[in-house]
Amino acid sequence: MAKENQFVEQIANIETDFPQWYTDVVVKTKLVDYGPVKGSMVIRPYGYAIWENIQKELDARFKKQGVQNAYFPLLIPMSFFTKEAEHVEGFAPEVAVVTHAGGEELAEPLAIRPTSETIIGTMCSKWVQSYRDLPLKVNQWCNVMRWEKTTRPFLRTSEFLWQEGHTVYATAEEAEADTIKMLNIYKEFAENCLAIPVITGRKTEKERFAGAVATYTMEAMMHDGKSLQSGTSHYMGQNFAKAFEIQYLGAEGVLQHAYTTSWGVSTRLIGAVIMTHGDERGLVLPPVVAPTQVVIVPIAARKGGVVEACEALKEELENAGIRVAFDNTDNSPGWKFNEWEMKGVPLRIEMGPRDIEAGKMMFARRDTLEKTEVARENAAESVKATLAEIQKNMLEKARAHRDSRIVYADDMAGILAGVDGGNFVKAGWCGCRECEDKIKEETGATARVYAEGESAETCAVCGKKAAHMIIYARAY
Amino acid sequence: MAKENQFVEQIANIETDFPQWYTDVVVKTKLVDYGPVKGSMVIRPYGYAIWENIQKELDARFKKQGVQNAYFPLLIPMSFFTKEAEHVEGFAPEVAVVTHAGGEELAEPLAIRPTSETIIGTMCSKWVQSYRDLPLKVNQWCNVMRWEKTTRPFLRTSEFLWQEGHTVYATAEEAEADTIKMLNIYKEFAENCLAIPVITGRKTEKERFAGAVATYTMEAMMHDGKSLQSGTSHYMGQNFAKAFEIQYLGAEGVLQHAYTTSWGVSTRLIGAVIMTHGDERGLVLPPVVAPTQVVIVPIAARKGGVVEACEALKEELENAGIRVAFDNTDNSPGWKFNEWEMKGVPLRIEMGPRDIEAGKMMFARRDTLEKTEVARENAAESVKATLAEIQKNMLEKARAHRDSRIVYADDMAGILAGVDGGNFVKAGWCGCRECEDKIKEETGATARVYAEGESAETCAVCGKKAAHMIIYARAY
Repeated sequence: MAKENQFVEQIANIETDFPQWYTDVVVKTKLVDYGPVKGSMVIRPYGYAIWENIQKELDARFKKQGVQNAYFPLLIPMSFFTKEAEHVEGFAPEVAVVTHAGGEELAEPLAIRPTSETIIGTMCSKWVQSYRDLPLKVNQWCNVMRWEKTTRPFLRTSEFLWQEGHTVYATAEEAEADTIKMLNIYKEFAENCLAIPVITGRKTEKERFAGAVATYTMEAMMHDGKSLQSGTSHYMGQNFAKAFEIQYLGAEGVLQHAYTTSWGVSTRLIGAVIMTHGDERGLVLPPVVAPTQVVIVPIAARKGGVVEACEALKEELENAGIRVAFDNTDNSPGWKFNEWEMKGVPLRIEMGPRDIEAGKMMFARRDTLEKTEVARENAAESVKATLAEIQKNMLEKARAHRDSRIVYADDMAGILAGVDGGNFVKAGWCGCRECEDKIKEETGATARVYAEGESAETCAVCGKKAAHMIIYARAY
Repeated sequence: MAKENQFVEQIANIETDFPQWYTDVVVKTKLVDYGPVKGSMVIRPYGYAIWENIQKELDARFKKQGVQNAYFPLLIPMSFFTKEAEHVEGFAPEVAVVTHAGGEELAEPLAIRPTSETIIGTMCSKWVQSYRDLPLKVNQWCNVMRWEKTTRPFLRTSEFLWQEGHTVYATAEEAEADTIKMLNIYKEFAENCLAIPVITGRKTEKERFAGAVATYTMEAMMHDGKSLQSGTSHYMGQNFAKAFEIQYLGAEGVLQHAYTTSWGVSTRLIGAVIMTHGDERGLVLPPVVAPTQVVIVPIAARKGGVVEACEALKEELENAGIRVAFDNTDNSPGWKFNEWEMKGVPLRIEMGPRDIEAGKMMFARRDTLEKTEVARENAAESVKATLAEIQKNMLEKARAHRDSRIVYADDMAGILAGVDGGNFVKAGWCGCRECEDKIKEETGATARVYAEGESAETCAVCGKKAAHMIIYARAY
């Protein structure tokens, strides 16, 4: 078919060259462009609009939890990092460092924040005095920088945008509960807004955040069967409270260290959306976060009344709060179909003289590529119902894909075969670092997350008694 | 009076020590805190919420103009700045420079953006090919950094938050019209949302943005009669288009340079709100951007039904979209009155057993300090009407203050007397740099803006024929 041929030319085949497909799609749909400094990206309006929709949804959820937004400085004295031993080891190698400013060399070099535990900890030690000041819950939407060797737009870049929530509690129980609560909010958001099914749970010690007592993650399966860590929530215990002297006077008059958490998601989520839902024609965007939810394409646009009818429909849908584009350019309908399909717009409405006469319009769904004739009357209602149906179907489809690719293995060969086949592999683990490292070496897979509620007999590497069931996968 | 005495202790006198009043107010109301690096600030939740309200209002206005949000990299190669001669001269001395990253020294040092014309120009040269790509209108909400010697929270800090809009047009006429249109949008926003009357107009060559053909400003008068530059809009002509090779193929097939603009406002606007409206009791926030628009204070809260009645009122107002706090702490009503007045909440509602019985509530306006008994029925309506009245009155009051402090002067002594008295001084100017410099030296005042539509006879400095009428003032 001519249409498919056109796509073969425009974007690489999703099944045979997924990395090139990804690069083609993100650039050609104008989500992103490469910045002049190696490893940097420019988020273009079409990509940034997805981020704005993500922000809107998440921010409302955070505020419902009593979290308040704030803004902390970009530059952090290098000495702050050394206050928490694991933290400095984890982050110092990838920081970008400011040594000169205002024409002079600085007395102390300043790091561009790779994450803000150290500076927020410093401020909280000043703000928290008594148990009455707790809990303290702040969040910031900002840019962070981690100097990476291998980069890819949205997935791994030197600078990226994220939110980082930081909380301070009087007790370990409250802080641990918050860590899990925020993880669950991320999961609900990923499933209901991004249509991405995620597996949540705890990370192994090797994979945990530098300085945390426990790191919880949500892992999503991409089209190629690899895993993408899509959000994390950390329980810090008193590690940062002790390093930065966050102490409060309890109701009984005893001075004690607080307990802290942090949790974050980033523009990486845009990469998750692309790699979860995309197909051979390009992007497929979930309606909740799609910049454009509906595109109206006129058929025989020069015929009297077609443009007017499309404009009236656009206005009607916009008034109902739907994000609509009307493509009234000179391009042919076929060209427009391809273009908007590549851009992943969830629903296309075609409208020509015959539709108008019959009081109808044609719906073309991006997720199923199905076309249906729909009555023009109550257009906003039928569009909303169809968008909801698309959102639901995308989650189900992604879940079916993911569930069909979860396998079990008893030994190293099984793990290798599993990840080679593009699967998440569940296998027993004794709990020792050597076995974890060996799997990475021999299969390229890492322990993504503890498989919650499951136990195993033996370790797939050493054959000793298993302490945990682990989900292994290759990951972005 | 006891209440006033309490404030004398808490915050410095606004009339006799305005700088200390400002510092006291911003810190004690928890708008902001000092960061660990000299010249840096932490924007606390109460301050950040004002910024969020500013963002929401402005962002909607930008989008209505067809401006799309995007995100460009924080780090800019130093060599980019040298491409526009005036630009490098203006900004190079205040940039913060990254020399090391990922444990290695960089081949080329990278500047943290002080503004983004150079990197956006670089990207636009790639995106703009034909006249069909124009106009191009992008905006980013981000952090920028300018290393300053003397700093003050919100007004001048090494890092601040802002938005920077950048447009590219085919013709000079369109670009100039955009420059003025955005300036007028800022003015409308300042007056209707921040209740700040502003004088808009063109800057002198000395005061113009480094690299611009023309800079337009909005200047606001603060409580002490000094001026605060509160937003700027720049017409770049082809300066940046030539430096960064932004060229397009016209409809006639001729390759030509485009015309660009940029325009921005920053967290400095929060400083403008504080210094325009504040009084001896602290902040006075305009309802449109106040984080909390209404605070409910219970009277005799332990009496049966009072707390319940306050909570019901809170819910009713919240459902009507009003931002409400209910202060149910153990503090005395008098303490609460002082606290919320210091925080500048536009309207306080007091409610006690007698009010409840009579179906009444007490309104206490922050702007006028007037108290009025109001029927409890249709509370949301009367609150909205009162908030609108407060918003209007604040603008009128600020305008009256400003207008009463605009004077004319014929000579240097007149200018000095005028600015010493806390005025904006209108005076003639021949147009030469020497006279402009002399006024700065001898009076500390600078040429804020051309007085539009006014002409003068002679230059207040040299006595020669005046080319312009200028508004001189001391400025933040």
